[in-house]
Amino acid sequence: MFQTTQTIRFGDCDPAGIVFYPNYLRWFDGTFHALLRSRGKGHQELCAGLGLVGMGLMEVGARFRSPATDGDTLTLSVEVGEWRERSVRFLYQGRVGDRLVLDGFELRGLFVGKGEALGLSPVAPLKAYLEQPPVR
Amino acid sequence: MFQTTQTIRFGDCDPAGIVFYPNYLRWFDGTFHALLRSRGKGHQELCAGLGLVGMGLMEVGARFRSPATDGDTLTLSVEVGEWRERSVRFLYQGRVGDRLVLDGFELRGLFVGKGEALGLSPVAPLKAYLEQPPVR
Amino acid sequence: MFQTTQTIRFGDCDPAGIVFYPNYLRWFDGTFHALLRSRGKGHQELCAGLGLVGMGLMEVGARFRSPATDGDTLTLSVEVGEWRERSVRFLYQGRVGDRLVLDGFELRGLFVGKGEALGLSPVAPLKAYLEQPPVR
Amino acid sequence: MFQTTQTIRFGDCDPAGIVFYPNYLRWFDGTFHALLRSRGKGHQELCAGLGLVGMGLMEVGARFRSPATDGDTLTLSVEVGEWRERSVRFLYQGRVGDRLVLDGFELRGLFVGKGEALGLSPVAPLKAYLEQPPVR
Repeated sequence: MFQTTQTIRFGDCDPAGIVFYPNYLRWFDGTFHALLRSRGKGHQELCAGLGLVGMGLMEVGARFRSPATDGDTLTLSVEVGEWRERSVRFLYQGRVGDRLVLDGFELRGLFVGKGEALGLSPVAPLKAYLEQPPVR
Repeated sequence: MFQTTQTIRFGDCDPAGIVFYPNYLRWFDGTFHALLRSRGKGHQELCAGLGLVGMGLMEVGARFRSPATDGDTLTLSVEVGEWRERSVRFLYQGRVGDRLVLDGFELRGLFVGKGEALGLSPVAPLKAYLEQPPVR
Repeated sequence: MFQTTQTIRFGDCDPAGIVFYPNYLRWFDGTFHALLRSRGKGHQELCAGLGLVGMGLMEVGARFRSPATDGDTLTLSVEVGEWRERSVRFLYQGRVGDRLVLDGFELRGLFVGKGEALGLSPVAPLKAYLEQPPVR
Repeated sequence: MFQTTQTIRFGDCDPAGIVFYPNYLRWFDGTFHALLRSRGKGHQELCAGLGLVGMGLMEVGARFRSPATDGDTLTLSVEVGEWRERSVRFLYQGRVGDRLVLDGFELRGLFVGKGEALGLSPVAPLKAYLEQPPVR
């Protein structure tokens, strides 16, 4: 559905010389935001238009299949695993060349309200937005 | 079994004003390393003693139950969920006061070798190490 | 004037085994925010009260005097170097035991307005706030 | 001399909605490492070849001229300001379109030895390396 590519950098890696794992989740999130933007709008504009406080995370998971290090070119692909009424599961795969480095998912919802009144709105508007063709 | 406490800071939060989620995973990892250190040794010393290249991550997961923000005092607790032959599951809970903010897990293994020869060593030595009483 | 103490963690370090330097700047910022909070309020509450968009950074600098690594206990101290009409210079020192690890500064201002109208407000209210005694 | 370009992401920004400043320093460092790699080798290979423990930081500084936010395309350029016997000053500029977002510098040295014996080696080999044309 969509992918980002980046060179892994020295500072992304830990004393064992491989990617410090929370960075992979940072890149999941960054790829989600790049996916939003690929259809023409960023998170802030979309949330303002839909009356949301955020397209937030409900759950995340990742399995680390092989290590990656400084200088590796990492391609992260994302696709929708499942649309539910009030949540959507995004599936991620990260590869260096043909080698699978990790796979995982993010379960996201459209949040409205604040404090005690924080709740989930139906995800249909996000589905309609993402089913548009990429801009340019 | 073990816990860390910290004040969440402005820079840990995103434009929605809540913790940017990969930071929680950074804190899972930091709590694991603090747990190691509570028994007297850090990761490098332990790995050198056991002939390991690292006590690396195989899988991670987290469910976000309620938001946390700048100034909140977050307590992260960790306990062992299950010792297997070549992996160990750590269970995490993060709370602000009594409120559950997130729970999750890390599946870790003891890695030996490099490249094609990268493999998993039995986790028994880590079990023996962590079952010691805390230092001081 | 004020200080924070933390144990440096595995994930704060890079493949050379020492702190990845941007983390020190993250800790400068975190110590500034902890200083604010030590007088009873956080950044958001203070900015709302003073009509500011932020207590933002205008300039930063740091000199790295000796390395620090996983397990080191780092104490960061901050004091005011100079109050000017529309800026304030905070001076930082980081030590592991008696050993100086780094020193540096942040030049901050009180920002008002947006876009073309973004400007600097006098820092006197921040001075008055910080000259209060610590809460508790 | 060399530049990198990236889209600023949601997670790079703080509750004020602008880039959390330590990320700029992370990108200075990343641009330095990309510059190394543009001549064919990464940090680890270069250090191994020259008998170094690292091309480490001695000093850093940055002035923040205008804010940048989620979705902005940031171009970071780096050039050498001055070669000295045992240090080199890199100058950075970050722009969004024509607008200057920040400028700054890194003072780096070639470190050899460990602990008490940590010292600086002449930077001439790095100068020779960087004066080669880019690979490809």
